[in-house]
Amino acid sequence: VFAISGVMAAKEHNFDIVGASVLAFVTALGGGTLRDVLIGQTPVAWMRDINYLIMVFLSLPICYIALDTISRLRRSLFLFDTIGIALFTILGLQKTLDIGLMPIIAMLMGVVSAVFGGVIRDVLVNDVPLIFRKEVYATACFAGALVYYFSQLFSPYHFVNVAVSLTVVMVIRYLAVKRQWEIPFQPLELPKKYKRR
Amino acid sequence: VFAISGVMAAKEHNFDIVGASVLAFVTALGGGTLRDVLIGQTPVAWMRDINYLIMVFLSLPICYIALDTISRLRRSLFLFDTIGIALFTILGLQKTLDIGLMPIIAMLMGVVSAVFGGVIRDVLVNDVPLIFRKEVYATACFAGALVYYFSQLFSPYHFVNVAVSLTVVMVIRYLAVKRQWEIPFQPLELPKKYKRR
Amino acid sequence: VFAISGVMAAKEHNFDIVGASVLAFVTALGGGTLRDVLIGQTPVAWMRDINYLIMVFLSLPICYIALDTISRLRRSLFLFDTIGIALFTILGLQKTLDIGLMPIIAMLMGVVSAVFGGVIRDVLVNDVPLIFRKEVYATACFAGALVYYFSQLFSPYHFVNVAVSLTVVMVIRYLAVKRQWEIPFQPLELPKKYKRR
Repeated sequence: VFAISGVMAAKEHNFDIVGASVLAFVTALGGGTLRDVLIGQTPVAWMRDINYLIMVFLSLPICYIALDTISRLRRSLFLFDTIGIALFTILGLQKTLDIGLMPIIAMLMGVVSAVFGGVIRDVLVNDVPLIFRKEVYATACFAGALVYYFSQLFSPYHFVNVAVSLTVVMVIRYLAVKRQWEIPFQPLELPKKYKRR
Repeated sequence: VFAISGVMAAKEHNFDIVGASVLAFVTALGGGTLRDVLIGQTPVAWMRDINYLIMVFLSLPICYIALDTISRLRRSLFLFDTIGIALFTILGLQKTLDIGLMPIIAMLMGVVSAVFGGVIRDVLVNDVPLIFRKEVYATACFAGALVYYFSQLFSPYHFVNVAVSLTVVMVIRYLAVKRQWEIPFQPLELPKKYKRR
Repeated sequence: VFAISGVMAAKEHNFDIVGASVLAFVTALGGGTLRDVLIGQTPVAWMRDINYLIMVFLSLPICYIALDTISRLRRSLFLFDTIGIALFTILGLQKTLDIGLMPIIAMLMGVVSAVFGGVIRDVLVNDVPLIFRKEVYATACFAGALVYYFSQLFSPYHFVNVAVSLTVVMVIRYLAVKRQWEIPFQPLELPKKYKRR
């Protein structure tokens, strides 16, 4: 799913097939890569388990051929995408916990795994990252991370915990898109003459 | 102080509160994070010592509420900012020396600690990094690093050495802003028809 | 050669001398640095072997003084640049193999070593990376990596293998520029109304 959004971004900017592949890889694996680098788990995951590369690679021809169809399936893409980020969040969180770091760091790394692939993609194609503007993307991930961590503390049913966290992420994102939630930036007015130095 | 400049950049680009927080963290911790990753000290510092996160987090509400007031306090901000980068430079330098790398590398890593938080912030919001244009920012840091390193070699008074290095950074930056120093790029004229391939 | 292209980008964007130096370093050493970070070989190479820094540093005054002349020598620059990326590819590949990672990962890391210095340069100066648009740059590197890896498997003559791989990279790039090859992105038409979410 992340690879698809990478290919879409590539298409929009008229990249060639190499550029599109690079973007697909970066979007799909960038968040987890950044997490691995920050927590010191190098060589990063996709270097030790070839399945990551294979999965992205297999998705590429599908993206090229069916981009037209895919872009009509917005609704189901949104579903898969949300499941994707929720799973990335949980996996990133668990991995960071496993090497003995603090829970709050683990939650942050969960969110980083989920959203920074997209951030790197946006930086590479010279867009201001989406996450900084409208989407309640990171917030939903963080809520999911919170729910997952505490349910793991108090409940022995791993599968249920994952399912509940997934649901939390999905509900928040769904509601956010449906009702066009935006998190307000700043309650106080600023004079217009204000300029950053 | 770095968090403030992150929030300011966020405000200027109409980011939501999540984007502003991310930018504040990145600006404050990005330089040190990059240094830790490059010198192989992972998990990076703010993952092992929660105080980093707490400090940035506590500064956030202050930034939101008082951004208006803060932007009027340019003069004192400039002071704190300069102290901040000078301390970051010295800490980064010392940390790199401590793991046994060469002095020149340590000085570079000091400068990286101090200035790359801002570079990453600028890249994320799609500005050309300030450091590449006018400010004698990196130069002042490097001068401070040089002074600190050699004073440490020849003088046993750690506190004095830090104070002297701080002063050097501050004086250079102050003079640079006051007299609008710019480091000339290129003494020879280039034909206008020149274009990068 | 990479340093030169960094300085050129700096000139084009009216950076000062510090910005130009930073860009030169980043372009020359960025790809290898990213590779080292990803494969977990930190502190990165140029921190352990001062010769990297010295070489870039020595090239800087030459760039400043002779940028005018250099920009006229397009043809030979192209030659050196191609030799440069081919060598970077082979070195990156070999280094990754040496720490026991898979051949396909090693080839990718070879390409990363060769092209990501330029990608980081473009991101810093706020251009969409060249690699995403026209140049058959990454493709040539990957072909060279492939040839090198398999020739190493079947032939004991290291020097010959390097020479053959070099030639492959050069021929592909030369032909690509000569005949204006572009890798087609997408064989199927997409409706113009398509927009990325």
